[in-house]
Amino acid sequence: MSARARTADFAAVDRFLDRRLEASLAELSRLVAQPSVAAQGRGMEACAAQVAEMLRARGFAVETIPTPGHPVLLAERAGESERTLLIYNHYDVQPAEPLELWTSPPFEPALRDGRLYGRGVSDDKGHLMARLFAIDALLDARSALPCRVKFVIEGEEEIGSVHLPEFLVRHRERLAADACLWEFGYVDHRDMPLLHAGLRGIFYVELTVETAKRDAHSGLGGSIFPNAAWRLAWALSTLKGRDERILIPGFYDAVQPPSARDRERIAALAEVADEYRARYGVTSFLRGLTGGVELRIAEVFEPTCTICGLTAGYQGQGSKTVLPARASAKVDFRLVPDQNPEAVARQLRAHLDAQGFDDVRFEVLGKEPPGRTDPDHPFLELVSETAAPVYGMPMAILPMTGGSGPNHAFLHTLGVPVATAGLGYPDSRVHAPDENLRVDLYLKHAKHVARLLVAFGERG
Amino acid sequence: MSARARTADFAAVDRFLDRRLEASLAELSRLVAQPSVAAQGRGMEACAAQVAEMLRARGFAVETIPTPGHPVLLAERAGESERTLLIYNHYDVQPAEPLELWTSPPFEPALRDGRLYGRGVSDDKGHLMARLFAIDALLDARSALPCRVKFVIEGEEEIGSVHLPEFLVRHRERLAADACLWEFGYVDHRDMPLLHAGLRGIFYVELTVETAKRDAHSGLGGSIFPNAAWRLAWALSTLKGRDERILIPGFYDAVQPPSARDRERIAALAEVADEYRARYGVTSFLRGLTGGVELRIAEVFEPTCTICGLTAGYQGQGSKTVLPARASAKVDFRLVPDQNPEAVARQLRAHLDAQGFDDVRFEVLGKEPPGRTDPDHPFLELVSETAAPVYGMPMAILPMTGGSGPNHAFLHTLGVPVATAGLGYPDSRVHAPDENLRVDLYLKHAKHVARLLVAFGERG
Repeated sequence: MSARARTADFAAVDRFLDRRLEASLAELSRLVAQPSVAAQGRGMEACAAQVAEMLRARGFAVETIPTPGHPVLLAERAGESERTLLIYNHYDVQPAEPLELWTSPPFEPALRDGRLYGRGVSDDKGHLMARLFAIDALLDARSALPCRVKFVIEGEEEIGSVHLPEFLVRHRERLAADACLWEFGYVDHRDMPLLHAGLRGIFYVELTVETAKRDAHSGLGGSIFPNAAWRLAWALSTLKGRDERILIPGFYDAVQPPSARDRERIAALAEVADEYRARYGVTSFLRGLTGGVELRIAEVFEPTCTICGLTAGYQGQGSKTVLPARASAKVDFRLVPDQNPEAVARQLRAHLDAQGFDDVRFEVLGKEPPGRTDPDHPFLELVSETAAPVYGMPMAILPMTGGSGPNHAFLHTLGVPVATAGLGYPDSRVHAPDENLRVDLYLKHAKHVARLLVAFGERG
Repeated sequence: MSARARTADFAAVDRFLDRRLEASLAELSRLVAQPSVAAQGRGMEACAAQVAEMLRARGFAVETIPTPGHPVLLAERAGESERTLLIYNHYDVQPAEPLELWTSPPFEPALRDGRLYGRGVSDDKGHLMARLFAIDALLDARSALPCRVKFVIEGEEEIGSVHLPEFLVRHRERLAADACLWEFGYVDHRDMPLLHAGLRGIFYVELTVETAKRDAHSGLGGSIFPNAAWRLAWALSTLKGRDERILIPGFYDAVQPPSARDRERIAALAEVADEYRARYGVTSFLRGLTGGVELRIAEVFEPTCTICGLTAGYQGQGSKTVLPARASAKVDFRLVPDQNPEAVARQLRAHLDAQGFDDVRFEVLGKEPPGRTDPDHPFLELVSETAAPVYGMPMAILPMTGGSGPNHAFLHTLGVPVATAGLGYPDSRVHAPDENLRVDLYLKHAKHVARLLVAFGERG
């Protein structure tokens, strides 16, 4: 099919989307107005029911399947081709706190300056809604979907997708598909659409030391009582050197370095150093990096050990002469292929013990293995190419992104290639106050997904 | 004078104190009911005026002298002998927060089970009141004080006696004395009265690192952005080794080890290891110490570097994948003779710079040099001996205590020996909710001070 023919094919679809934009945003707003905070167990069943109803209204067969946590929705509708696209989304959202930092209430979606604000408006209800909007347009123009579409929509993405891997194993056959469209995606600071072929894994722990049953006065105990804060500081300092090298034996054993092809793809990405300097106010980068392709490789291909939080003793104004009995640190390891969180858990325990820190305990607060699709996979090319008429350029296919998610289970349990594509942008503020979506990117994502479904059905 | 004669001498004094105990506690309660929280600037002038009035009522000439902070009271009354005892107290108290942990309101003194509860009831208003009570008894029995008594009563002890050293320099002549009775003192867990000849100094800082203008997502920045919490953990780990040795060059240069005589005196003190294990729930002590004289020496003769607090990033329930832009630690150095806080400040800065941590800034939140009187000084012997008829044993004279205070200025500006003696006990809860004094120890302290004043006058 020529580019000209394709453009013509989508004139009706695009007209539909342009005309119905306001109505679609209204439907999205109703979805966002229904809180669904997985971490707080707030509104989960009501939101799941609302989403199920939205899918049924579009002719999908929908089943709400319980898990030990929040239910998962499975939905399916046949299409003109037997090719099957699996679309992964989630109906849960992050907690909205701190509420006082929102310009308008998080569960009362508000449109301002071309942006829709509200908790979950981007992550992930906007993505789900834009995809349903694309389906509306296709059904209007063709009265059938161009391919079979399955949705798997979970309610625990924001709390680590704890039951999803097991769910995928159990429902492997019903979820059989040829490819998977991921729950999110974004454009960069220059509005170039990005497609990520892989996600880093995560292993998130809280380290805790307790040295006594209560705090002591530092004048009394300072030279004779063990101090939990010192134990913690010393234990942490054995985890990573000042050169950023993680010192846990075996940690790097499974790491696959980027290939020449990975480097080539990353080199195609725009420079990010100045953007980061301006946005975050960092004056220098780690490892002597100053920018360019090496910075972009490091940000996604290096595993990390990040202290996310430290807590001990007195933290108020001024001084208090206290010797803390308890100290804790939240530590986030990002993992790259082929590391895995179970191995890192064993390595961390063995390391702490070997270093004399058997008093430092840890609780695992999150774990997901890393996963990646071959960036040269034809499905990824298809997703990228179908974006070109909408964004004015194909998506840049990047081998990895720095964030994490349950893609490993899709890749390895279902055996499908996974591509990201979505309506995020650098100021989406997902997980933060004033989460928002840009209406122009919402519309673009819907137009892109319509093209993707058609092309995906045709090539099957 | 024989012990028998002495006993007879004090029969009238003791009768007075026994009979008037209730009235004295009522006067103390009125003093405690007047808040005087230096850190919050609450009730300071009213409390100073109340104390001045209490002194005038006992025939003292009183002057309230302004400082750049809260005023200092100077009071003086001549006695039968020209020997002059300087008594140091303070009228300020610690903040009462957290209020919800008090059994009865902190500024509504309440008597329960032989204890008087209230903020400042022990630290330090009870000490001041017990001493005035002793003076009342002497004036009743003899119509004159046995020696000249001067009071210096400051209003900033709980915020580091910031203006007192300068005040002592300025008023050196008016404060001339032969010896000084310190603001506090206590019995140990077996009710043995303790006399401390020295106090450790203190150098309290807040270390701060800032690596960016705002937090980043750990999935984005983890491998390329500097992390303030890591910088802090690494910087801290260079301050002290896991063997408790402080690694700041020059830190130990001025340290005077305990003499054979110091060790001998400390050996006379009761075993404390089991008491500490029970009270604090510590299972082991630092430096391989298990108890005995070595533990008691370490607790007061070792300088310390204590992490009193750690703050960075996310500290709530569960996980948040944040890369902190800011981290801080409160660190308390206890100093022993002849260290001094100015030198430690320079050493700390030089050390951090030399270790590559010029990004770690610190703010000084408190500093007092250490100071000690010769434990064999005759004044200390006198204070100890005069306690014997009251406590059934002389005070154990110990070369040092672990806490800090402005005794250095008394020792070096005024040139007076300084002895501690007081009504504290291990469960006084000073600086904490339910601060209290034991009425029996209040009475004992008054009886002891009466004997001390008489003996002090006689030996002049």
